[in-house]
Amino acid sequence: MQRISLAHGEGGELTHQLIQEVFIQSFGHSEQTQFDSAILPIPSQTIAITTDSYVVKPIFFPGGNIGKLAITGTVNDLAVSGAIPHVITAGFMIEEGFPIKNLKEIVHSMAGEAEKSGVNIVAGDTKVVEKGSVDGLFINTTGIGVIQEEHRLKPEMVQEGDSVIVSGTIGDHGIAILSARQELGLLTDVKSDCASLNHLIHELLAEIKGIRIMRDPTRGGLATTLVELCEDFHFTVEIDEASVPVRKDVQGACDILGYDPLYLANEGKVVMIVDSNDKQKALDILKNHELGRNASVIGQITSSHAQSGKLLLKTAVGTTRRLNRLSGQILPRIC
Amino acid sequence: MQRISLAHGEGGELTHQLIQEVFIQSFGHSEQTQFDSAILPIPSQTIAITTDSYVVKPIFFPGGNIGKLAITGTVNDLAVSGAIPHVITAGFMIEEGFPIKNLKEIVHSMAGEAEKSGVNIVAGDTKVVEKGSVDGLFINTTGIGVIQEEHRLKPEMVQEGDSVIVSGTIGDHGIAILSARQELGLLTDVKSDCASLNHLIHELLAEIKGIRIMRDPTRGGLATTLVELCEDFHFTVEIDEASVPVRKDVQGACDILGYDPLYLANEGKVVMIVDSNDKQKALDILKNHELGRNASVIGQITSSHAQSGKLLLKTAVGTTRRLNRLSGQILPRIC
Repeated sequence: MQRISLAHGEGGELTHQLIQEVFIQSFGHSEQTQFDSAILPIPSQTIAITTDSYVVKPIFFPGGNIGKLAITGTVNDLAVSGAIPHVITAGFMIEEGFPIKNLKEIVHSMAGEAEKSGVNIVAGDTKVVEKGSVDGLFINTTGIGVIQEEHRLKPEMVQEGDSVIVSGTIGDHGIAILSARQELGLLTDVKSDCASLNHLIHELLAEIKGIRIMRDPTRGGLATTLVELCEDFHFTVEIDEASVPVRKDVQGACDILGYDPLYLANEGKVVMIVDSNDKQKALDILKNHELGRNASVIGQITSSHAQSGKLLLKTAVGTTRRLNRLSGQILPRIC
Repeated sequence: MQRISLAHGEGGELTHQLIQEVFIQSFGHSEQTQFDSAILPIPSQTIAITTDSYVVKPIFFPGGNIGKLAITGTVNDLAVSGAIPHVITAGFMIEEGFPIKNLKEIVHSMAGEAEKSGVNIVAGDTKVVEKGSVDGLFINTTGIGVIQEEHRLKPEMVQEGDSVIVSGTIGDHGIAILSARQELGLLTDVKSDCASLNHLIHELLAEIKGIRIMRDPTRGGLATTLVELCEDFHFTVEIDEASVPVRKDVQGACDILGYDPLYLANEGKVVMIVDSNDKQKALDILKNHELGRNASVIGQITSSHAQSGKLLLKTAVGTTRRLNRLSGQILPRIC
């Protein structure tokens, strides 16, 4: 068994073998959880649910692969909603001919990342399609987390003067993917930042009462994420370009290619709005953690309960301009 | 906006429009559930989780489409585990150029079927990939159901003499898909049986204490489903070929093509093992319901607690032979 064949997707003998030899091998198997479905107790009454499909190209990239990304992305979605990630399901759509060795490596990464972040992969599904009907491998992960009442976020408490903090440098994932494609002849050693933030976020929520909202600025980047927050919750944010942490090589690549790091995807960063009284404490916790070393206060809420919220950027040259959502195509298949 | 473009998948302005105009339009939107993730109370402590990706080809077929199938498939997976289907997430992987009109029709079917079966679509995700990187549209659905303690299935109670019942004719979905492909020049008016069985199953579980196990015989067909049960729970089943309900036109198509209906996929059938004292009551309930009119007792448990369980078929000519899992390719992309 070296390559995936259509028969691996038929639900018969070969599907059984594939599940045993590739998935159960890495994900394990228990009374509670079978690969096709799971029945399990949930230790609370309020849960968070999120789903994402991963179509990243290439499947392996500096700093990770599609499997690691599928776990970290779903874990982070749950964590920023104030939930403790609990279980994840995984659906694999595989192209006929895909090397089993690569599939095993990807599944192994998923298992490792799931263990690190303390989630169980409880249910799965595999489909195989003919060569040319999917580009290698897509993965869907759906995550369920348990909301901790005492950590429930309070976006309605956002007020003028609140601080906006980002946990580290932005744009790393976007540039790492671009660079891995080598489409642009771009050679950098930027690695994707893809990482599970749940332990860091849990520590922040446990220590700091004044965290109003958190988001993970993935597709569309930091700017799009903040625009959506401004619109959804009717406040205005002003961010200070000079305070936004960007790696030199990421900025360099952006300058050459004409990209703005504010619109590039991140896969291991959290942006949060915090009571300004708590900002130093939040920064201390972040900087003390491997995944938050480059955290920075990047701006503040300049008006709350606005009719229509907006995102403003104070540029390095002192002018202020409004930022909108990412518009049009910039980087397809970034996650 | 007539066709999907890559920019619809970038997480920016066009993604926002797509979600508003296509998904929220059909799925609705509430305080609790946003399209990207959801936070909601779950009315019990034990839940069932299942995930499936749908890659069916063609996307529209007699009796349904990929969207309806994604809902019924996930609802049925939950229902046969004894759970009340509660919420569903939906992940869309869309090919650039896909007609928005078709996407709307599919999403509309999903919303209609979800309403019929009483589940809420609470979270979603869309990814767009370049032309040629996926064949039209794949959908992943993950479902969460609530286990009713009093309806918990008891596979460990299976004993010699228990009856095996199937809720209707088998192989309809398989032949409908084959026929829709027109690859074989086959013209039948067989429709897919795809339907949500949760209300029927709920009624059965409420009325009959002696239901030991239920399964939905999808990929791999009735035979593969029964072989898996026999192996997992160490019993032997003998089914009587003459009692297995098969539509005449399905049997005719199978005869011409060399398929065995026992190995063809079903998307609206349940097979169950029931205390033989309850078999008549189960049949009555089934036959009284639109989705169970052709229900039939097809066999019985001939030994339980066997070292290695197996599936035996008493053929129409009186011989008995062992059936195995589906082996090798028969019908790719059936669901």
